[in-house]
Amino acid sequence: MPDLKFDVLGIGNAIVDVIARAEDDFLVKQGMNKGAMALIDEPRAEAIYDAMGPAVEASGGSAANTIVGAASFGARAAFVGKVKDDELGRAFAHDIRAAGVAFDTPPAADGPSTARCYIMVTPDGERTMNTYLGAAQDLHPNDVDPAAVQSAAITYLEGYLWDPPHAKDAFRKAATIAHGAGRMVALTLSDAFCVDRYRAEFVELIRSKTVDLIFANERELHSLYQTADFDTAVRALRDDAVLAAVTRSEKGCVVVSKGAVVPVAASKVARVVDATGAGDLFAAGFLFGLARGRDHATCARLGVLAATEVIQHVGARPEASLKDLARQSGLPV
Amino acid sequence: MPDLKFDVLGIGNAIVDVIARAEDDFLVKQGMNKGAMALIDEPRAEAIYDAMGPAVEASGGSAANTIVGAASFGARAAFVGKVKDDELGRAFAHDIRAAGVAFDTPPAADGPSTARCYIMVTPDGERTMNTYLGAAQDLHPNDVDPAAVQSAAITYLEGYLWDPPHAKDAFRKAATIAHGAGRMVALTLSDAFCVDRYRAEFVELIRSKTVDLIFANERELHSLYQTADFDTAVRALRDDAVLAAVTRSEKGCVVVSKGAVVPVAASKVARVVDATGAGDLFAAGFLFGLARGRDHATCARLGVLAATEVIQHVGARPEASLKDLARQSGLPV
Repeated sequence: MPDLKFDVLGIGNAIVDVIARAEDDFLVKQGMNKGAMALIDEPRAEAIYDAMGPAVEASGGSAANTIVGAASFGARAAFVGKVKDDELGRAFAHDIRAAGVAFDTPPAADGPSTARCYIMVTPDGERTMNTYLGAAQDLHPNDVDPAAVQSAAITYLEGYLWDPPHAKDAFRKAATIAHGAGRMVALTLSDAFCVDRYRAEFVELIRSKTVDLIFANERELHSLYQTADFDTAVRALRDDAVLAAVTRSEKGCVVVSKGAVVPVAASKVARVVDATGAGDLFAAGFLFGLARGRDHATCARLGVLAATEVIQHVGARPEASLKDLARQSGLPV
Repeated sequence: MPDLKFDVLGIGNAIVDVIARAEDDFLVKQGMNKGAMALIDEPRAEAIYDAMGPAVEASGGSAANTIVGAASFGARAAFVGKVKDDELGRAFAHDIRAAGVAFDTPPAADGPSTARCYIMVTPDGERTMNTYLGAAQDLHPNDVDPAAVQSAAITYLEGYLWDPPHAKDAFRKAATIAHGAGRMVALTLSDAFCVDRYRAEFVELIRSKTVDLIFANERELHSLYQTADFDTAVRALRDDAVLAAVTRSEKGCVVVSKGAVVPVAASKVARVVDATGAGDLFAAGFLFGLARGRDHATCARLGVLAATEVIQHVGARPEASLKDLARQSGLPV
């Protein structure tokens, strides 16, 4: 592979997280599906915000978190996503650039405000998400710069891009450009309910080899193949996908390819403070390893390392240098 | 004392914190005075934000943090401070109300944006603050509701109110109303450089008994009496003040009154994650205890408990219920 400009380029919904602690009965009262991501409109966003406790704001967005995580390992990274030119949009742009990520998508001058995800963190560390897409609705194929995609070893796309109206076109455009240049395309299935909404299209993306690498957690995989049996789902995935990494929370993960199913253990943590970003950061480590030519088990270990860091504090982006943590653990960076 | 509506009413600058980790050499390069609060204008705010790392946003403001802390103990609490009707202003209002605090100051419809404090947290947990006052400049005596002040056992004021042009008039108005109703007035000296700016006025406030209770840390007290000797400063304070609580970081605190100097020890913590809010939360516990008629040592222990909670995580407001923590420690709530 020639010396490319980027190890990984991500495309996703550009979102600011609004994070509060909540008791389980708050989720019940609000009709929230624990552990899931629900799409909400502006009136519902206001109602949730009025009802929820004191919050902190932090840049989020699934693919954006992943790209920031990859940059923390030392990856050369870029992100494409749409904010509005408002206070939260400027915070999003500041945070991702300050993390060393190239971010050149022009903000929307008018229209809805920057996307917000209202995240309730329950005492067990689980997070329940409610996303108001706002300006992220306006991501358009024109926002994808062909030269940037061509010069990225891996283009990483989130399944959530199926929610806004034009973003899936941006997704397909990027995948076509990447493959045209001989690059790799990766997809995260994002969320079990997201898979529910777009199951047929996601299966088609995988079977048609529009994507070369799939990230999924157990629930998303079960939703994709509509089975409650993990081994059945993994067999189906082996038939369909070139390469997949399936995360299983405290049970670690498995890397699934035609030739093998490689399990990698999770790390023990004293307490899960906030699970937000666990999957995103697993993908960060895995993608970084893959872009640097590491074997699948090493990629998975880098993923576990990053996920372990992010679940031990509030927020979905690393607080420590993942490069330093990897070095301390004897992993290659 | 009759059954009042509020245990404590605070008046202060309404500020949203923008918190990032930074190395010590960043402070040096930026010409920042470690551990202090500097006032900055908008161009400097932009330059600092451009230079600083990824940040999180969280409601702050010294007196506001104190009032939220008091509410977390179970105090009936109110806050007066000026935000703009913008995204950060709405976040400030949401957060303080969601903490159970009455907050009725009307936001500014135009003019400068909601105040922001850019906080650099160094690896030792110390915080260095840069405040753009923005809309907080527009706090005015009209924003002080006499009925609210009359119905609060203690009115709590921050020395930082001397920085905006009209806020000190709001301060004096509130103090006059409180004393007219037979209530107590407390003041925090806020910051050693703030004391430098307004030393003569602060000494006058104390000697004239415009304030009945002083909160200060060691550096502020040394600045007030322009001495490097702690005992000299405490003697001067005993001569001037009715009651004072002086915090000394890991050395605990002393409660100074005409009759006695009562020392209370600090709690051991494994690691100071972020010292932001330590003084504010000490005041929260002390004020709560005082409003509920506790003795000075108990008030100080409640203060130490709250400060200990807040320095063990990022951000200046409690993440846990201080009422629950106090109960677990056998302190009265």
